[in-house]
Amino acid sequence: MTTTNSTATNSTASSTDNGLAALAEATAEAVTADLATAGVRPRVRTSLVGGTATQVTVRAGAHEWTVDEPPALGGQDTGANPVEHLLAALGSCQVITYQVWAAKLGIALDEVEVDLRGELDIRGFFGLSEQVRPGFQSVSVDVLLRGPEPAERYEELSDAVERHCPVLDNITTEAPVESTLRVA
Amino acid sequence: MTTTNSTATNSTASSTDNGLAALAEATAEAVTADLATAGVRPRVRTSLVGGTATQVTVRAGAHEWTVDEPPALGGQDTGANPVEHLLAALGSCQVITYQVWAAKLGIALDEVEVDLRGELDIRGFFGLSEQVRPGFQSVSVDVLLRGPEPAERYEELSDAVERHCPVLDNITTEAPVESTLRVA
Repeated sequence: MTTTNSTATNSTASSTDNGLAALAEATAEAVTADLATAGVRPRVRTSLVGGTATQVTVRAGAHEWTVDEPPALGGQDTGANPVEHLLAALGSCQVITYQVWAAKLGIALDEVEVDLRGELDIRGFFGLSEQVRPGFQSVSVDVLLRGPEPAERYEELSDAVERHCPVLDNITTEAPVESTLRVA
Repeated sequence: MTTTNSTATNSTASSTDNGLAALAEATAEAVTADLATAGVRPRVRTSLVGGTATQVTVRAGAHEWTVDEPPALGGQDTGANPVEHLLAALGSCQVITYQVWAAKLGIALDEVEVDLRGELDIRGFFGLSEQVRPGFQSVSVDVLLRGPEPAERYEELSDAVERHCPVLDNITTEAPVESTLRVA
């Protein structure tokens, strides 16, 4: 009886071997075994800091941070503003989706950077024209990847990310938002 | 020629007299004088922290913060995750839009709190079902206002906020996102 090769290293190990491939596989198994594990329901609270015009405290789980406006928009710039947070949500979601899908597809990936710009016309927000939407009219997302694979593999990865990035989906395809108002 | 009342105080001054009404008026004047002042183009950069699975550094102007995933989603919970940031963008945008429109409409407003929940099915993100969208399927937004005005005035305010909140618009109505990929 021989034990040749029993200690061989995994020849497919790459810089993307960060546990995400195993996570994706475990998630697939868990969801197959019990569909109820697929549902998640993130919760966030935002509240005005008393005595300020536009300073907002955000609480999400154990995390707390501040959103504000620059002086030109009535605030004191104690944090990035809401539309910058929307771009941050999109950019960080792209980065993480690149990481997870690179692991799923076995594509080595060394660096991911995303540069985002949004086009906004403030006439919408201030009600100066009912023809102008209040939100971004368009967003540009420039992705820079570094890694050892042929370019085609990164194009394959990019296609997968475009189809599976949650925040990208919520900006490019409408979702219902139900609001309730309570006055105390 | 008389100057009677030239020193009268503004009888509509309220707890919302925080400079936002004057800002809205100055913005309207500036945009009327030069339409080019209406366009703004926020920019944000997000990049993977080397050696981590899902830790992302966000830079927006002078502000820098971290986005990450909890261990159950492959990260180390060094920051709130992207979909929590999407809810934070929406909630903080609601708070600030309430403040600005309360000032525009002359409605006194003492407190604004927004509690948000999103419904997500992770089969979309992990590609386990092509029938499931990757983003939030729906979002609920519970707004709590405190102030001295009759309830009807806060309903009027809420209607104005629903029509003019930028991030709400970008979630409920699709916007084009143009992506470019560069491989280095």
